[in-house]
Amino acid sequence: MEKLRKHIQQITPISDEEFESVKPYFTIRKVLKNQFLIQQGDEALYEYLILSGIFRVFYLEESGKEHIVQFATENWWMSDYIAYFNHRHTNMNVICMEAGEVLCLTLEGRENLSAALHKMEHFFRIKLTKGYVALQQRIISLLSGNPEQRYEEFARLYPNLIQKMPKKYVAEYLGLSRETLSRLHAKHG
Amino acid sequence: MEKLRKHIQQITPISDEEFESVKPYFTIRKVLKNQFLIQQGDEALYEYLILSGIFRVFYLEESGKEHIVQFATENWWMSDYIAYFNHRHTNMNVICMEAGEVLCLTLEGRENLSAALHKMEHFFRIKLTKGYVALQQRIISLLSGNPEQRYEEFARLYPNLIQKMPKKYVAEYLGLSRETLSRLHAKHG
Repeated sequence: MEKLRKHIQQITPISDEEFESVKPYFTIRKVLKNQFLIQQGDEALYEYLILSGIFRVFYLEESGKEHIVQFATENWWMSDYIAYFNHRHTNMNVICMEAGEVLCLTLEGRENLSAALHKMEHFFRIKLTKGYVALQQRIISLLSGNPEQRYEEFARLYPNLIQKMPKKYVAEYLGLSRETLSRLHAKHG
Repeated sequence: MEKLRKHIQQITPISDEEFESVKPYFTIRKVLKNQFLIQQGDEALYEYLILSGIFRVFYLEESGKEHIVQFATENWWMSDYIAYFNHRHTNMNVICMEAGEVLCLTLEGRENLSAALHKMEHFFRIKLTKGYVALQQRIISLLSGNPEQRYEEFARLYPNLIQKMPKKYVAEYLGLSRETLSRLHAKHG
């Protein structure tokens, strides 16, 4: 839970007493490689804060084709927010690519925590703001269709992942062929 | 300002006294057809709440090609959030397609208002949540590449715009040819 506290304190100071009241809203879960946190068709009951590990968020078309929505690693929040915020069943999958630990938070917990502590409402608003900006950048990068720009965007967003992640997934996320990706990879070293 | 109050009250109740303290943060601006609210290269000083009118948010590639990021109409918030939240110069344009009025809010105003009133922090968090979900849906719709699905998404998101908006812009937003759009339009009536 110390990681959670540090994570919150990057946005807002929080006293020992306040943090004690925050802790019970979260539960820890260990996740092994290739385990699913969310599977298409499930209820999206939780939002996850990643303490360690690497995760891939994707959905499958009926044809079986996979579309990668995002990767997520330490200190990222993730869920199928469309389903989570609207109490709907999810169309997404979240799979663990490198074993780790996550903190789980229900929507009810998120709302109660925000109502109880103005600081936490602030924390969630600021995190959402950053998330919103990241999504807007992803849209622009998808619209622009410039492979080099998309690659640079990815390297900026996930500096730790670009070397580590199987090229197959990076290519898929960027909507590039593996040949184009290798060329950009060589160029940017 | 009565519209602003109604808009806030859709999310949270607010007293007369509280609303009096909220009002000074906003300024009203009339916008004529074809006027720009934001132009590429400007500072993005404001976020806008649209009281009336229709707006188009887009950016231009160096080649001059236009990419439409979103349309915005009554009760929508809009800005170039990448620039607005990061105090950067904008890469986007916001142009008025049908004359109307907007409320303008600076980032400083937004932050001070959120700090002063827990209710307003809540209001902005919930609005961001909805915005975040809308962007995630747009990403999925861009990734899926299924024209029919994209068209339906658009009709759901902008029910008032699909009849009203020049087909050219709808086609561009959806990344479809005008022929495909006309076919879908005829099919869905």
